[in-house]
Amino acid sequence: MIAVITDHGSDELFMGVLKGNFSALAPKEEIIEVTRPIEFGDVYTASCIAERLACHLPKSTIFMIIVDGQNESARRPIGLRTKDDRLFIGFDNGTFTLPIERFGIKQIREMNISKTKFSLSFTRSVLDILIPVAIEFSNGKTFESIGSVYMTFYDLKHKKAIIDDKKIDGEISFVNDLGDLSTNIPFDYLEKVGVHQEDKLMINGKPSSIMLDRRAGRKNELIVCEGLGGYLEITSRYARACDILKLSPRSNLILEV
Amino acid sequence: MIAVITDHGSDELFMGVLKGNFSALAPKEEIIEVTRPIEFGDVYTASCIAERLACHLPKSTIFMIIVDGQNESARRPIGLRTKDDRLFIGFDNGTFTLPIERFGIKQIREMNISKTKFSLSFTRSVLDILIPVAIEFSNGKTFESIGSVYMTFYDLKHKKAIIDDKKIDGEISFVNDLGDLSTNIPFDYLEKVGVHQEDKLMINGKPSSIMLDRRAGRKNELIVCEGLGGYLEITSRYARACDILKLSPRSNLILEV
Amino acid sequence: MIAVITDHGSDELFMGVLKGNFSALAPKEEIIEVTRPIEFGDVYTASCIAERLACHLPKSTIFMIIVDGQNESARRPIGLRTKDDRLFIGFDNGTFTLPIERFGIKQIREMNISKTKFSLSFTRSVLDILIPVAIEFSNGKTFESIGSVYMTFYDLKHKKAIIDDKKIDGEISFVNDLGDLSTNIPFDYLEKVGVHQEDKLMINGKPSSIMLDRRAGRKNELIVCEGLGGYLEITSRYARACDILKLSPRSNLILEV
Repeated sequence: MIAVITDHGSDELFMGVLKGNFSALAPKEEIIEVTRPIEFGDVYTASCIAERLACHLPKSTIFMIIVDGQNESARRPIGLRTKDDRLFIGFDNGTFTLPIERFGIKQIREMNISKTKFSLSFTRSVLDILIPVAIEFSNGKTFESIGSVYMTFYDLKHKKAIIDDKKIDGEISFVNDLGDLSTNIPFDYLEKVGVHQEDKLMINGKPSSIMLDRRAGRKNELIVCEGLGGYLEITSRYARACDILKLSPRSNLILEV
Repeated sequence: MIAVITDHGSDELFMGVLKGNFSALAPKEEIIEVTRPIEFGDVYTASCIAERLACHLPKSTIFMIIVDGQNESARRPIGLRTKDDRLFIGFDNGTFTLPIERFGIKQIREMNISKTKFSLSFTRSVLDILIPVAIEFSNGKTFESIGSVYMTFYDLKHKKAIIDDKKIDGEISFVNDLGDLSTNIPFDYLEKVGVHQEDKLMINGKPSSIMLDRRAGRKNELIVCEGLGGYLEITSRYARACDILKLSPRSNLILEV
Repeated sequence: MIAVITDHGSDELFMGVLKGNFSALAPKEEIIEVTRPIEFGDVYTASCIAERLACHLPKSTIFMIIVDGQNESARRPIGLRTKDDRLFIGFDNGTFTLPIERFGIKQIREMNISKTKFSLSFTRSVLDILIPVAIEFSNGKTFESIGSVYMTFYDLKHKKAIIDDKKIDGEISFVNDLGDLSTNIPFDYLEKVGVHQEDKLMINGKPSSIMLDRRAGRKNELIVCEGLGGYLEITSRYARACDILKLSPRSNLILEV
């Protein structure tokens, strides 16, 4: 299975070409795409989505992150092998940051495809380098064979959630179409600060309840629950949690018991 | 084949996790998704879509309806076997209502998965109960083996279209992105009231024509034609039928010869 | 592989029915869909997309163009075999125009399905004629067997890009969600007028740079690069190229060295 995490719409021409290429060259390989809520060029959200998706898919999945970064080395196609032997491929634009934080890094290698030379064109790099390498992996090629070790990879600055006595200091990772807030706070941090299901919590000074059932709570009340990847999520019934809290991606978040 | 009817966007993280799970556990099973025009939490439209989709797919298809309802028993995962042996799985939130009306009910059973206990979390219920059961069905497990018979299931109140002499009394089922109106009126009711292709019809007092070709008719004229599932649909050329008639889902509809 | 080019949303009921039919009748056939940026009824963009997609997919792909045209013969289901033996199926609504221009025409044949008669209903024509023919092709049926030769097919009026000394005269083919402009100008026309990567170019009087890397250039500067199908594309960093140039599909375009 190849999981494609991208800011391209899944029914656009580019994705048609990408999926057609996979279908022609690796017809038995299943392709899974996640494109939302990744805004154009948003390497940070792509990195978060890749990590969370990987938590729920088999280790044998090949993760392909196709987002165009703005940093200088963002045309360099690279591959990541995590400590627990997951494979991620993409560009040196920081999208491996969260997968590395979660699964650890064994090695990053640069892709040296003999037939194709390095290109400044993003489209060419995806079609001529990333897809062939993904297909080679799918056919059993080893990670080591894709190219030489790549040391100075680009890393996204990001905040890690921390516990400070009875307070958790984190941030918003991304916001979905319904206004639900995904955070960088592992849900089990709640236990560490001594709160449990049905308990109350202050989020940036506003009251909320920890619930398994997102539908619980009164109108406009904030609900804290566990989201995909085991991260804390904030939602609300009949209202957009992001509007109640006036928060957007990368906003600071203080949870207090 | 597994058909997923859901209010989740098909390229969101949650759907990536769902499809990835299917791909890992049932790699040969084809997944079909329909997500539009199902608004978040709209169990009624999901029920209509499931029924209409089922009319056009083979009986062996496993239908999985993933929408979060607001009723009290909406965390209970259940399966439906229709009189003609179709399988629907989902939650006790009323989404089986229209499939039952169309195909009849043989039995509803509650899912008792020994490994997993009932959860108030919707996400957990989908990932830990619904998907494994769908995969067991796909591997040939019998309907009877999923759990005990479930008697007092939740049913959506809904209007059935009725014929009253030369009048048909129905309602709007859902409205698509183009403003076309899908109704709950079987298209062959027109014959029963004695009208045919090219005849005229009054819709809530506004004139319309029955046409096979949706492009027919003058600008802003209402066109009545047969939609998927054999239901009557109302459209218009270069205009939104829903705007001409000022109707939305569940609005009343009176057709007069 | 069957590539579906359509103005229907990929997660709508109609597409669910279409994919479900393919899955039931041709379970091993991969389905690729491209729906964006094809507006409802936009046969011209569908034709451009089909041609560009075909440039990047294997010749064995069956291309199915499902868009409803406004011309009189637009209910006639036809198939195209190109000079290089690609197969396109669809309706006589002009959507074969660009594939014919690119790949040449060997023959167009009308579909005569013995079981099904011609229908004025678009939905019926797709489900009862187009899909069965696609599946027959997928099962090895010959192009000649679908029906008799069809001579007077409908063709879309369209402009071809021309070179006039140091000037290229073309038009906008379509605009994507990011505001990038796809043109009808082959990228190698630039060489023919003597400009290369990093050179400057005037687009309708506004300065632009030819770049491999779309991220290059100052804010709001126009970037000219090679897009899918080998056509010239116009983009801009942090801005919508279509807004800078105030252009929409079919707008005229003059490039000057």
